[in-house]
Amino acid sequence: MEVKVLRLDHRRQRDARITTHVCLTARALGSSGVFLSGDHDKKLIENVNDVVKRWGGEFRVEYHKKWENLLHEWKNSGGEIIHLTMYGEPVQTVTPKIQESLQDKLVVVGGSRVPSKVYQEADWNVSVTTQPHSEVSSLALFLHMLYDGKELELEFEEGDMKIIPSQKGKNVEMSNKRSDNES
Amino acid sequence: MEVKVLRLDHRRQRDARITTHVCLTARALGSSGVFLSGDHDKKLIENVNDVVKRWGGEFRVEYHKKWENLLHEWKNSGGEIIHLTMYGEPVQTVTPKIQESLQDKLVVVGGSRVPSKVYQEADWNVSVTTQPHSEVSSLALFLHMLYDGKELELEFEEGDMKIIPSQKGKNVEMSNKRSDNES
Repeated sequence: MEVKVLRLDHRRQRDARITTHVCLTARALGSSGVFLSGDHDKKLIENVNDVVKRWGGEFRVEYHKKWENLLHEWKNSGGEIIHLTMYGEPVQTVTPKIQESLQDKLVVVGGSRVPSKVYQEADWNVSVTTQPHSEVSSLALFLHMLYDGKELELEFEEGDMKIIPSQKGKNVEMSNKRSDNES
Repeated sequence: MEVKVLRLDHRRQRDARITTHVCLTARALGSSGVFLSGDHDKKLIENVNDVVKRWGGEFRVEYHKKWENLLHEWKNSGGEIIHLTMYGEPVQTVTPKIQESLQDKLVVVGGSRVPSKVYQEADWNVSVTTQPHSEVSSLALFLHMLYDGKELELEFEEGDMKIIPSQKGKNVEMSNKRSDNES
């Protein structure tokens, strides 16, 4: 099952950091890529690609201007659409139902104002609490529940560095990829 | 058990939205307040207070310039300190140990560069994956695991409005607090 994220209505000035956090959260918690809609923010895409290069794994951010088309293509190829919105059904109730299917999942996060079309096209409108908080935390909790916590054990291959867990400090192992190649 | 969050090294220009999302995530997922360190950002505090007023519950953001003192005070009154850092011990391993104590918890989130003092003072340095993502998602996942998912069932009293979960739309119930008082 592949899980991708669609970030609607990205605004370069206002959303750069939040959208970056959406991308990094998607990556760290097992999604294979983000479709960015709204402003075409090349700098953001470069920044995220740079993290992928340094930290490993496969993850892509692609710009996709016409999100309506993307929703249709996703459904036409058998995928399901999950829209994270505070107005939806409780994540703790619907995630077990969502888990019943192994179809690819597109997780949609807004946007200040999400068009009603998104609510209609979504197979599931899912709320992570009915309180306002953050698309970053909603995405994190949804992915965590979708993967039953297994995303916390993911390994990312081919990065330049790797953190070794530590009680009181920083323990970073640098990859010897380069010196291997050079030797 | 009371859970509060300390946001280190807030920078008004750069961090306003991320820190706001940290505060709203803390609130929505059961923490009772945030201590803000770094820039004294009155606008941010007002914005969060405004959300509390409209959406209910009790939650406070307080500015606390001298975070070192706060760490000492917290420990001196019997509380424990949990520092969320990608360099720490895996959240899935240590959260069951953290749950063994019912002492108040102060959850510390950085800051671009967190002083080593924080690593030393913390009872637990906890990593939510060893990959870079977001203080917002780390906080969300840690609170979710600390509360065993019960935070998703929280009710917030005395708000001006309340969302009723819905499959395909927006269902918002406005409180009649005011008209009750006026009648």
